[in-house]
Order: sequence, then C-alpha cells, then structure tokens
Amino acid sequence: MNSLPTETQSDLLTITQRNQIKILPHKAKYERQEIYQILDEGLVCHVGFVVDSQPFVIPTAYGRIDECLYIHGSPASRMLRNLKQGIEVCITVTLLDGLVLARSAFRHSMNFRSVVIFGTATVVEDEAEKLAALKAFTEHVVSGRWDEVRSPNRQELAGTLVLSLPITEASAKVRTGPPIDYEEDYALSVWAGELPLRLTTTTPIPDPRLSPEIKLPVNVQNYTRNSAKSV
Amino acid sequence: MNSLPTETQSDLLTITQRNQIKILPHKAKYERQEIYQILDEGLVCHVGFVVDSQPFVIPTAYGRIDECLYIHGSPASRMLRNLKQGIEVCITVTLLDGLVLARSAFRHSMNFRSVVIFGTATVVEDEAEKLAALKAFTEHVVSGRWDEVRSPNRQELAGTLVLSLPITEASAKVRTGPPIDYEEDYALSVWAGELPLRLTTTTPIPDPRLSPEIKLPVNVQNYTRNSAKSV
Repeated sequence: MNSLPTETQSDLLTITQRNQIKILPHKAKYERQEIYQILDEGLVCHVGFVVDSQPFVIPTAYGRIDECLYIHGSPASRMLRNLKQGIEVCITVTLLDGLVLARSAFRHSMNFRSVVIFGTATVVEDEAEKLAALKAFTEHVVSGRWDEVRSPNRQELAGTLVLSLPITEASAKVRTGPPIDYEEDYALSVWAGELPLRLTTTTPIPDPRLSPEIKLPVNVQNYTRNSAKSV
Repeated sequence: MNSLPTETQSDLLTITQRNQIKILPHKAKYERQEIYQILDEGLVCHVGFVVDSQPFVIPTAYGRIDECLYIHGSPASRMLRNLKQGIEVCITVTLLDGLVLARSAFRHSMNFRSVVIFGTATVVEDEAEKLAALKAFTEHVVSGRWDEVRSPNRQELAGTLVLSLPITEASAKVRTGPPIDYEEDYALSVWAGELPLRLTTTTPIPDPRLSPEIKLPVNVQNYTRNSAKSV
C-alpha cells in the first residue's frame, strides 16, 4: 500500500479482495481520475462473464457517465441476456502505449494502461437514463457526433438493451518508461528503449452513397483519441 | 451455417456450442488462416477465467506457434496459478480497424477483427518447447528481435511459467465496410463513412543508459504491425 498517494480518501476507490493488485503493486492505481481517463480514452472493453462454469470474454463498445459504465446491444445477445440476470461481471479496458525493448529477451515488456472493474450490471429501464447512455456511446466514439446525427426513435430505444455497471470496485494498472535490465546486461551491445504506439486515423472513407456536397465535419477531420474528456 | 465458405474441411475449425457465433452469423469466420492472421497481428490478448464463480479478465502478451497459443508470466501470478490447474479459459484478441459513422446514432458501429478461443491451458514443462515459446513471445513483438538480444538463461527459464492453449475451439468475427443506414436515412444531410484506425509507432525513445554508438535496428525503425507473418 506504500504506493498510494496522499489524496483525500474520496478520490480513491475502496480496495477489496477482488480489485487489489497483488503482483507488482507499484503499478496499481486506485484514483478515480486516473481510472476515468483510461476509460474515456479507450474505445473497446472486454466483458468477462460466466455461463455454466464457462468463462466468456467478449469485446464491445461502451460509454461512461460519472461513475457508471454503460454497455449495450441487441436484447438477443447471449452476453446481455446473461448479464441482465445480475451475474458477476469483469470489464477490462486496455490501452497499449508502447513496446519496451530490453537487452535480454526476459526483460521485454509493454507500456500500457488498463482498468479492471468488478460488479454486477443492471438493466437501464428509465427512459431518460437510457437516452443519456445512448448519447454517451455516440459521444464516446466521436465527440460532438450526437448533435449531428438522427437521434434514436422510440422503436430503436425499445430495441436496445442498455446495462449499467457502477465503477466502484475497480483498479488501474500502469507501466511507463524504459526497460529495466539486469545490471550486467547494460554493457551488451543491444539497442534498448521504448517504441511508442499510438492509435491513429488514416484518411476518412466517405460512404459510397454520400452526397458529394456533404462536407467532412471538423471533429472527424481532426480526430484524436488522446484528448480524454474532462472528468 | 450458410455463411461457411467451400474450403476443404481441414482448413475450418470444428463448430461447437461454445464457439458458434449466433448473433450476426454472417460476421463469423472459422477458417484457420483468418484466425491465425488476427492472432499474429494483435499484441495483447484478454484472458478470461473463473475463480470461486468470479470472472476475471486480464490483459497479457502472447505468442503463437502453429496451433498453440502461449501465454507466460511469473509463477506467482494469480492468473497463471489458476489456469495451470486446467480450469476453463477464454482468450480473446481484438483488432480495431475503424469507426463506422452512420447517419443515425443507432447505426453507429466499429470495424474490427476479433478471435475468441475456448479450452484449457496446460503448463509447458518440456524445456525445448518452453524456449521455443519464449522465442515466439519475443518475435511476436518485434520480428528478428530474438537473435539480437541475450537469450534466457537457466534461471530465467525456470522463473517463467509458460502455458499453452490449443487453437482448436475458436472463432473469428469480422466487420468491414461502410455504415448500413436505414433506407430513409440516406437522404439526411449527415456525413457518413468509415474513419480507419491504425496502431502506429512514433519516434523510438532510446533507453537513457544506451551507449550513443548503438544504432537503432532496422526492424524497430521500420516497424509495422500490419504485416502478419506467413502462417
């Protein structure tokens, strides 16, 4: 627990048996702001759940509003049909920041930021909260997009199952910086360092049926994933 | 099953209750080559396992040799300590290829390629296979790196737990192409299309203790993730 900073207690999540990071605890983070920033920068989460003792890990989009993480999909989805029963879920978001190239094979690593959330999801029944969650999904993908597109109609709203998971029992794990080689390996004639990785965009591909007079919006043209929204 | 192509049976994985994709089956792929290419391009997998009914989803590096996926880590790791008992595991690799921007909020999507593997992992005890797996981890991160760095010594080999999972019960899911809007929405004055995403590198950061005469190797300088090795 030495690695915990000295913020006020309210900024830190409670550490439990499930979310406590035991291996390499100096990489562990329990600050709410740090967890939110990782969640806001990521695009895909991996949802883990158990059916008849069998684990499933399914990638899906998500959105966040305050201390709720939202996922959604078709009411026919195996994942959502199971999760809405209130079974235990583990949702993980991982951002890959770089390859860590050491002088020995053994000391190779990756720089990353990840968040793991434990809990049980509940169905969002309230129509206002459901619409807010749908807005959060769209805005999470492209900021400003919600006001540019057609809003969900009553039928679409009814045809979407939205689940909410509280971000209370969670932790982040972060590795940054150069490789840590064994002292005797620093003398080796091997290039060592970090190769940073970034999720970048290439030229947008207009829909084949797009009218030529419709211009590319600025938020798509200047898209970047590294400007996490304020939390 | 209509979506299955007409290759010879040996190129297709067996479809079971676990790996059959039921929602949007036209996105499902069971071809070995397609699954291998996704695994070879990815860098991080998400490992799902269950302890006392609680699912865990942990990101980790991996390597592949033929039809085996390997993961590794400290013998003290909670994940590896549990997996080596032979419990059920689900390993998922997801590549994000683009944002799919539709004319309605409801039809927004992502282009992606993912692989889900089910099975039970076994400890690699054989020293030659273990060394081959460690080589696969290093080569998976940077092709050609293994021959440039110090190989694992006996102590490092003993201090690494390597697990092997057969890629037999697996499936891939792939979405490509433009948004699919409702017919009446094509008349809307909304930019629609795909914003492609790529994992790219920025300038390598030399280790602070790197001797200035050691040059950046070509495989790091010209690094790209999109040239999957031949399978």
